[in-house]
Amino acid sequence: MIDLLPSWRPGATRDAVEAFLAASRDLPVDQRVAVLDNDGTLWCEKPGYVQYDFLVAQLHAAVAADPSVGERTEYRALLAQDKALLGELGLQRVAMALLELCAGVTPEEFTDRVHRFMAEAVHTRGVPYPKLVYQPMRELLGALRAHEFSVFVVTGGGTEFVRAVSAQLYGVAPDDVVGTLVEYHYAEHDGHPALERTAEAYGEVNEGPAKVAHIQTQLGRRPVFAAGNSGGDRQMLEYAAAAGPPSLALLLDHDDADREYAYTSKAVSFAETEAITDVARREGWTVVSMRDDWTRIFAA
Amino acid sequence: MIDLLPSWRPGATRDAVEAFLAASRDLPVDQRVAVLDNDGTLWCEKPGYVQYDFLVAQLHAAVAADPSVGERTEYRALLAQDKALLGELGLQRVAMALLELCAGVTPEEFTDRVHRFMAEAVHTRGVPYPKLVYQPMRELLGALRAHEFSVFVVTGGGTEFVRAVSAQLYGVAPDDVVGTLVEYHYAEHDGHPALERTAEAYGEVNEGPAKVAHIQTQLGRRPVFAAGNSGGDRQMLEYAAAAGPPSLALLLDHDDADREYAYTSKAVSFAETEAITDVARREGWTVVSMRDDWTRIFAA
Repeated sequence: MIDLLPSWRPGATRDAVEAFLAASRDLPVDQRVAVLDNDGTLWCEKPGYVQYDFLVAQLHAAVAADPSVGERTEYRALLAQDKALLGELGLQRVAMALLELCAGVTPEEFTDRVHRFMAEAVHTRGVPYPKLVYQPMRELLGALRAHEFSVFVVTGGGTEFVRAVSAQLYGVAPDDVVGTLVEYHYAEHDGHPALERTAEAYGEVNEGPAKVAHIQTQLGRRPVFAAGNSGGDRQMLEYAAAAGPPSLALLLDHDDADREYAYTSKAVSFAETEAITDVARREGWTVVSMRDDWTRIFAA
Repeated sequence: MIDLLPSWRPGATRDAVEAFLAASRDLPVDQRVAVLDNDGTLWCEKPGYVQYDFLVAQLHAAVAADPSVGERTEYRALLAQDKALLGELGLQRVAMALLELCAGVTPEEFTDRVHRFMAEAVHTRGVPYPKLVYQPMRELLGALRAHEFSVFVVTGGGTEFVRAVSAQLYGVAPDDVVGTLVEYHYAEHDGHPALERTAEAYGEVNEGPAKVAHIQTQLGRRPVFAAGNSGGDRQMLEYAAAAGPPSLALLLDHDDADREYAYTSKAVSFAETEAITDVARREGWTVVSMRDDWTRIFAA
């Protein structure tokens, strides 16, 4: 028999995953629905979100073309790495300012920009960004597909960034990504219909309860498997867990300071009073110790 | 060779469809994206939208359980079939009032209601509603899939209604339906997470330019094939046509008063000054004469 999970160390966690996969064979295929968070679940989110690095790279490119762009307060704070000012402005305001750098751009051009970034930029770990994918999670995606699951990525980040990379990184088609939506404006270019990005989000940021609502509005299918790593994934994990049996809620615990990072995620947008790992243990979710349960974190 | 389109009469229309399918083999598989409108394109929309009939059936059920429900102005007008009052109130207001009949309902219960309606209700043509699907269009869906297209339904109607029937009628999964979204409210039922429908639409009604914007926000893939029948499909057809070559914009002309209905669709929400069939001919789209190009309309 082929080992679908070679980077998963034998033990209780791996047993729980395999028991769920075996039990899923009793479900009709159309009910085999898996949702996975992206940042910190499928790939590394430290020291910062990849998407944020991408937007900062857009800022550097814009300033290189026109230095006056850098005079805006949010951009000045970023360029000077002025942590006090960035803290004062807040992540939300800075992120919205960065989004404006892509306003007016067509979906095709935005995708090209993401592809160039992924091909050229180097992460602080000294590797290209595609190397940040967790190898054991890539194997898990394959194992889910081998059991005829439909696999969806449900990200708190911008949908368009993730769908520009999801086929390459995860084999997930653009239409199988649920995230925070940026609105498009319908326009004409040279007499042909075209779309232009706006700098406005469409609906709520895809975190917490909104993840569950958007899974319904955008997919219309209820997951029996969910994987996440932060407070922003809590409701999605609860929703999947309650759909069973069989069901599996998998929470990654970033407890490997040597090979990755050691931290306990909390949702940005929610006042969680309890560490998500404690919630997971109380709820009976399957907690993945990245240190103990994985023989390796990255592919190479 | 198997004839994939047995209900399409030989001629220029069928030739154009077959030439497009043959040319699509040169496209990478991930670019083989087809979008099809639902009402009037995949199934009959006369004398009224099926979804409207469903909502009216919900009203009758609600009034049977509690007659006082029928006292509301919009409902009274519907129950009395008071065309003058209905015209005065307007379709939008009446439709929004009907949507409230499903507020608070979970996605599972809503889907059950649609399934019961589809199994039990009888259309004015004297057939169950699933028989309203156009057989030649069902064959076209099969031909597109035989050419490895991803097939999406892009409806002006409510997404949730269409995705409750799309697998049965068209073999299209719930997540492959793009339509007008009703917002969900995240709630707890007996300590378990659950979703409840609201009576609010989320974003714009999925007609006209919004169809193109929503194809991007919800699918992130650009179609090279589109099929429609009304002014509300115009921008989607233009968008697909401009993606080629190869591309195909297919417009159904309801010109068969004997076997279906004879009418020229206009979008409800847009002031079109030109019949959509005239736009189609001017733009060089492929116009399907339901009378001349199809040997049969319905399966049986």
